[in-house]
Amino acid sequence: MQIAIQDLYPESHSHCFGCGRSNQDGWHLKSYLAGDKTLAHFTPKPQYTGGVPGHLYGGAVASLLDCHGTASAAAFRYLQNHSDLTDSSKIQRHITAQLNVKYIAPTPMDVELTIAGELISIEGRKVKVLLTLSAGDKLCAEAEMLAVGVD
Amino acid sequence: MQIAIQDLYPESHSHCFGCGRSNQDGWHLKSYLAGDKTLAHFTPKPQYTGGVPGHLYGGAVASLLDCHGTASAAAFRYLQNHSDLTDSSKIQRHITAQLNVKYIAPTPMDVELTIAGELISIEGRKVKVLLTLSAGDKLCAEAEMLAVGVD
Repeated sequence: MQIAIQDLYPESHSHCFGCGRSNQDGWHLKSYLAGDKTLAHFTPKPQYTGGVPGHLYGGAVASLLDCHGTASAAAFRYLQNHSDLTDSSKIQRHITAQLNVKYIAPTPMDVELTIAGELISIEGRKVKVLLTLSAGDKLCAEAEMLAVGVD
Repeated sequence: MQIAIQDLYPESHSHCFGCGRSNQDGWHLKSYLAGDKTLAHFTPKPQYTGGVPGHLYGGAVASLLDCHGTASAAAFRYLQNHSDLTDSSKIQRHITAQLNVKYIAPTPMDVELTIAGELISIEGRKVKVLLTLSAGDKLCAEAEMLAVGVD
């Protein structure tokens, strides 16, 4: 059973509404390594609708990309110096400096969404990640993130 | 008493989790015209923390900018052909095509945040808006949005 990247965050940094295991009210998004990419799956609840019921609101799209992106940045940076992620890994939390989101198509609800990440570049503490959010074969949004490691 | 831009959306488009009056579980963000700019105020509840308690999670920052931005776009576009917004206005809903967010400083919680918008340009159905999110005098995030009017 693979461990989620967010479950390797130190307890002090595990409270995010979107992806923190210690946030009782949150979404608990879980991101996993998949080869040289990262993947997360999420099915939004009906209250997170946009203006027209049946489609996810734009802020939730950005939230999923953001939480998965910082997890991806943490994992890609960790794997520069380690061979794999394990239960005992100490992973460095990364925070978003910039998130550029393109909304390509309305994101449906009541279906499982897939959020994917791949590494663009690492320079010191700065990690650039390319992100996509899809519903089945339909690409709904893509984003480029600049994340920075927290000392 | 000034009316909020979101309260002029048609009933069919009033369900957004972030700003829809018809979403019982949502945040009900209210954006107002203020001279040639737009303003909204919002105080996040504690569960919307980021990784470290006491600061707003990144997705919520993006959500507030997104909801305020589409409201701003709707108002700026409406005012091209009308002198003011009134209860009887029929305003055209705008959706986000692109949202580029810079996270400048951590956003504190349990304080009233101010989200402001100003018009960059309008070309046909495409409206560009410059957005900021501040806590008192502290600028926490800024964004540029491209929004498109829904026919």
